[in-house]
Amino acid sequence: MTLPDRNRRFLLARVPEGMPQESDFLLEEEAIPACPTNGVLVRSLWISVDPYLRGRISGVRTYVDPILTGSLMESAATGQVVESQTPHFKKGDFVAGMWGWQDYAAVDAARVRLVDPHEAPIQTALGLLGGTGMTAYFGLIELCAPKAGETVLVSGAAGAVGSAVGQIAKILGCRAVGTVGTDAKAEYIRSLGFDAALNYRTELPYKESLRRVCPNGIDCYFDNAGGELTDAAMALMNFRGRVSVCGQISQYNDRSQDVGRRPFTEILVKQLRVEGFIVTRWASRFAEGRKQMALWLKEGRLRCEETVYEGLESTPRAFIGLFRGENTGKALVRV
Amino acid sequence: MTLPDRNRRFLLARVPEGMPQESDFLLEEEAIPACPTNGVLVRSLWISVDPYLRGRISGVRTYVDPILTGSLMESAATGQVVESQTPHFKKGDFVAGMWGWQDYAAVDAARVRLVDPHEAPIQTALGLLGGTGMTAYFGLIELCAPKAGETVLVSGAAGAVGSAVGQIAKILGCRAVGTVGTDAKAEYIRSLGFDAALNYRTELPYKESLRRVCPNGIDCYFDNAGGELTDAAMALMNFRGRVSVCGQISQYNDRSQDVGRRPFTEILVKQLRVEGFIVTRWASRFAEGRKQMALWLKEGRLRCEETVYEGLESTPRAFIGLFRGENTGKALVRV
Repeated sequence: MTLPDRNRRFLLARVPEGMPQESDFLLEEEAIPACPTNGVLVRSLWISVDPYLRGRISGVRTYVDPILTGSLMESAATGQVVESQTPHFKKGDFVAGMWGWQDYAAVDAARVRLVDPHEAPIQTALGLLGGTGMTAYFGLIELCAPKAGETVLVSGAAGAVGSAVGQIAKILGCRAVGTVGTDAKAEYIRSLGFDAALNYRTELPYKESLRRVCPNGIDCYFDNAGGELTDAAMALMNFRGRVSVCGQISQYNDRSQDVGRRPFTEILVKQLRVEGFIVTRWASRFAEGRKQMALWLKEGRLRCEETVYEGLESTPRAFIGLFRGENTGKALVRV
Repeated sequence: MTLPDRNRRFLLARVPEGMPQESDFLLEEEAIPACPTNGVLVRSLWISVDPYLRGRISGVRTYVDPILTGSLMESAATGQVVESQTPHFKKGDFVAGMWGWQDYAAVDAARVRLVDPHEAPIQTALGLLGGTGMTAYFGLIELCAPKAGETVLVSGAAGAVGSAVGQIAKILGCRAVGTVGTDAKAEYIRSLGFDAALNYRTELPYKESLRRVCPNGIDCYFDNAGGELTDAAMALMNFRGRVSVCGQISQYNDRSQDVGRRPFTEILVKQLRVEGFIVTRWASRFAEGRKQMALWLKEGRLRCEETVYEGLESTPRAFIGLFRGENTGKALVRV
């Protein structure tokens, strides 16, 4: 293939108000960067879009500094080494890193990791074997600590993280129940082995519909969604239940309406434990998590559908699709 | 003294709606019960009234079965053995147990514990060396795990549990801040060593007034109150902060208004851990907790004011006073 001589990259044009728009991102061209000393020049092959990015472009500091207007959109990506100035990687190696929404990236060796294309398709390094998989694995196992026979409820269950959480719950011998936004997604998660699915757009009121799919109550709740669904889930938690707060996607674009039944009385009388997390907390254990997930993947016990957008230029659209419920499984851009 | 020949005891007359009324309780007389085989007949000297009792008379099962209409009001109490049919206790011994709002009780030996009147006044077995003290000790240390230098916020800080929590926080080298309902209570907790006090009735809005008394944010929040104060506290929690949910007294009499800002986004982005508890979770460790509290008490590092109501007949009034903010420190009935 002939390499283009320009690098295209997306900058944050402005902090989105509410639902992000394509015009919030600016595609600019620049010369392909030089390969850094002790680093690699990488050509992007796949880019991951993830809900947490919404928080990073909100203009406020959360757990990390925000991506500022005029700066490159950071994101997980996989690609191939085009040039290397480090003994750790050679030309042609497949690697993954956080170099963002661009065709090429000059990256320090310490900020990329090798991806084995024989283990799984390389984009799996963005899904089950990447941040997505680690989020599901550690967020469920460390904070929910599910025991065989318990009921695990997952919101956003057709998404990349949620679908992995439900499958891990099944591997651990739990009853896995997911909430999704379409009947097709309900069918999808049942095909992954979930015991029950609830379409939150049509099956109302939540408390009654949740009770139907969780007849023994909820022992573990892995929350990606927030909002009224979470209010209802809290009311159905069992004694000493555990809630892992991974995301609140229903509130990311408009927190002004994030008002509801306070959960503290439920937390008190049922002695619940509710904990929020950012997966980097377990960064020192990612090798362990990746090894376990790779084993389950090899055994055919984990699957993940991909929703693929074609071309770097589609990246904003792929990202916006996350908040419209347009994607099933892992949302990816094939550059 | 001459012993009366009748036992007076309070039954639950009806499940209170909203704020309990004296008429929700019925004082009845019966013959003094016989001393049970393997047990003791006890004469009550002090009865403890505690906010958690409101949940027990709500007619619904929470963590334990409710006290039913027509049943004895259960409560912690201390008293003296009048007659014994067990080698574990002898006539004249001071004991504590959960025998409730009555003059006399026939109690199984396994359900009372000996109280040493030389260690502390015997009513301390209902306060710093009883359930109150254990609630403060384990609820703070186990769930908040405060580290020296951190800010510990306590709501209901002039109460029996709250005032103990703040003093333990000071012993552990923390900055202790309390919220109270009167300026006199603010002065009281400052006299106990709290670094700052906030009168929640007059210092509004909460977010600004809390920020003033917690300029470095809140690392640990020990919540007895709930409601809007808790909404504001959640917004000021620091990264990886811990919340111990001990009570929600502002909501006990009317949960219909328990609506507010959902805390889940704060929990997520700051990776907070929020846990509710009932102190009996640590029952197997009460001896350890009591030993530590007794040591601090002996060293003069813990104090607790008492609000004393005179006579068994005043027990409903003492209980209702808890929800009116009428008591400072431990609320007790001297029988």
